[in-house]
Amino acid sequence: MRGEIITIGNELVSGGTADLNSCYAAGKLTASGLSVTRITSVGDDEEMVSRALKGILKSSRFVIVTGGLGSTEDDVTCRIVAKALDRPLYSDQIMLEKIRAHLKVRGTEMTQPHRKMAMLPEGASIINPSGDTCGFSLAKNAVRFYFLPGVPEQMRHLMDQFVLPELRHLYETLPVVGQRIIKLYGLSEPRIAEIFAELRWKPENAVIGFYPHFPENHITISLQGEDEASVTAHLDRLGAEIVSLVGDYVFSTGDQEMEEVVGGLLGDRGKTLSVAESCTGGLIGHRLTSVPGSSAYFYGGMVSYSNHSKVDMLGVRTETIIRYGAVSDQTAQEMARGVRERMRSDLGLAVTGIAGPGGGSRDKPVGTVHIALCSKEEVFSRRYRFWGRRDQIKLNASTMGLDWIRRYLNGDSILSGI
Amino acid sequence: MRGEIITIGNELVSGGTADLNSCYAAGKLTASGLSVTRITSVGDDEEMVSRALKGILKSSRFVIVTGGLGSTEDDVTCRIVAKALDRPLYSDQIMLEKIRAHLKVRGTEMTQPHRKMAMLPEGASIINPSGDTCGFSLAKNAVRFYFLPGVPEQMRHLMDQFVLPELRHLYETLPVVGQRIIKLYGLSEPRIAEIFAELRWKPENAVIGFYPHFPENHITISLQGEDEASVTAHLDRLGAEIVSLVGDYVFSTGDQEMEEVVGGLLGDRGKTLSVAESCTGGLIGHRLTSVPGSSAYFYGGMVSYSNHSKVDMLGVRTETIIRYGAVSDQTAQEMARGVRERMRSDLGLAVTGIAGPGGGSRDKPVGTVHIALCSKEEVFSRRYRFWGRRDQIKLNASTMGLDWIRRYLNGDSILSGI
Repeated sequence: MRGEIITIGNELVSGGTADLNSCYAAGKLTASGLSVTRITSVGDDEEMVSRALKGILKSSRFVIVTGGLGSTEDDVTCRIVAKALDRPLYSDQIMLEKIRAHLKVRGTEMTQPHRKMAMLPEGASIINPSGDTCGFSLAKNAVRFYFLPGVPEQMRHLMDQFVLPELRHLYETLPVVGQRIIKLYGLSEPRIAEIFAELRWKPENAVIGFYPHFPENHITISLQGEDEASVTAHLDRLGAEIVSLVGDYVFSTGDQEMEEVVGGLLGDRGKTLSVAESCTGGLIGHRLTSVPGSSAYFYGGMVSYSNHSKVDMLGVRTETIIRYGAVSDQTAQEMARGVRERMRSDLGLAVTGIAGPGGGSRDKPVGTVHIALCSKEEVFSRRYRFWGRRDQIKLNASTMGLDWIRRYLNGDSILSGI
Repeated sequence: MRGEIITIGNELVSGGTADLNSCYAAGKLTASGLSVTRITSVGDDEEMVSRALKGILKSSRFVIVTGGLGSTEDDVTCRIVAKALDRPLYSDQIMLEKIRAHLKVRGTEMTQPHRKMAMLPEGASIINPSGDTCGFSLAKNAVRFYFLPGVPEQMRHLMDQFVLPELRHLYETLPVVGQRIIKLYGLSEPRIAEIFAELRWKPENAVIGFYPHFPENHITISLQGEDEASVTAHLDRLGAEIVSLVGDYVFSTGDQEMEEVVGGLLGDRGKTLSVAESCTGGLIGHRLTSVPGSSAYFYGGMVSYSNHSKVDMLGVRTETIIRYGAVSDQTAQEMARGVRERMRSDLGLAVTGIAGPGGGSRDKPVGTVHIALCSKEEVFSRRYRFWGRRDQIKLNASTMGLDWIRRYLNGDSILSGI
């Protein structure tokens, strides 16, 4: 079943914003066994939007349109849809009530821009009428049009929750499509390629993709089958083969992020954690607390960006900093011990390093990072050298810190190969 | 002068790869005073590529085509161009020699796929004939077609070094183009729309765009002019008008992020900062330390995710937590004071709240966040209600915290309108 995607926005044709919406929609449609034949981007321009809507291919059974549904003057979609598809606008009462209720909670008056948001082309049915974010769909001849907002998270939500289920339901004969992502950390892309090439590993009836996803690497398995059960079994089999090839570098065989994996392990083992961050500046805490319920195992920690805070707040000895420097195994160990004791957690993690672009030296160039992990009984530490920009060094160091906890709780060697 | 962009590749319409080439080309063309009216992506499919080439707009004077120039079987562009534009293929001797020389260096024999790379449509002129990476251009009627490889760095190189200079030369009368982004925080999109609608504010010869960029809103000004100086003056004038309409909600009139603005102000004023984060979990520290050189003014702080860490590490009184709760003005104030004193910084910022999805109550629903800011002399605090998912509440709370510092250092009222 074929269709196409139209994205609307001056920012797209002027190069101000990359069109990630169409990529997301195309990926999801393809994974559902639907095929996208064309993606067209035009500006907020009546003639061009109208031309795109009228010029859809004869073979298209669905059209996903994103952008132009907001309340500001440059959002022109509804008006143009009404003209191009010959469907006059009306003020939708359900939408109007939704907006009114939404505003009431926030104590805001309804104004003309809000009212404009409730004007829809005749025959439109609202997508997600009970939710905060809406779109609308419209059937014209044999084509189903879906109009979604251009804000990525809103568009993705409506696509996943409403558009894809409806399309799957409409075109029942779809083969079952399965996809799985295997996430690795600590192995480079060329090394992964080498492992698979050496083995001349070519699974039948499945497409294997390798995607760098800094600082992780993702391996995707995509395949089609007759039914859900056989697809799942096939995915399980291939997934297990891949994991056996790359071993404990795999941290997730589902959609989980590293921080979710670590949170799950801490919860399962009944262990609590605190963190002392220097060069990561709070990023590890931010990632850990992005997981709902993290307060059960994460007590918090210190962002010790200055030397005196390492001494005052974490009990790092001044002599240690003078003798070995703030970026050293010794300081990292004392930071980990200090935060663990002060926060009264089972584990203490510490990261100290030079994120750059300044601050490097010959002995300790930009990207030098020391990580330490301690329990009541033991303490580990190690020096790393990361590469890239400041944000990349911070991200890589935070992932490495989290990976240490994962490996420690799994009983894997922390120092193996990384 | 108008034109369009066509990108070719199965990976684009299947969502495997985001189409960053068209974004790059569109940005460069727009900045050169050329305007892109449409971007079309199609797969490596004869019919669809042919349709795209034949269906270009009457108004288009140039067409940039990327992808499909390699040697593998799915690279079909040249063959289709020959058919669609009625220009039979010939074996180009210059190209053939180039390929032969290239292969000789690598000790490789010439094979059929290599020969295929030298087959060009009649009338083609080679782009970058002396370089490693080539493309070709072709004039048909009044339209100039540029065929470039799909590999991003190759495409960018040819675009910058050959296509743009040629287009600038062909259309000598190009105006100078300028763009500016004005970033706001604390005003909703409908409210911004209202302000501009009420004033019936329609600047001449400029396009104004409104883009939500959660939790910020961005206003863009794009305009053309005779020369650099007049464009800059016009941008300055319009920028100042917009700022006068929306006032101190504007935190940046350039490309700066909120954390850069705050960092710049702290540096300029010679003030140092520390932060006590509960519900933001380290995000404020992470954002502040994403700015190079932030160690000059940011001392660090506490991530106090547990009640006992608020008491032990920040000196919040147990009675305060029992009486008012961990999410309260009183606790936020004591956190801010505690972190400022312990870190010996000029300012102390504290954020405590309920990021959800659990943990809410009738009195303190999910999204309730208290922010406090103190100096040696004074302390401010206020309760907010944010909406959305956990990550949105964290992000919004972190931006609000940073915005407090901005407003405080600017001498604006923290409490005004937000």
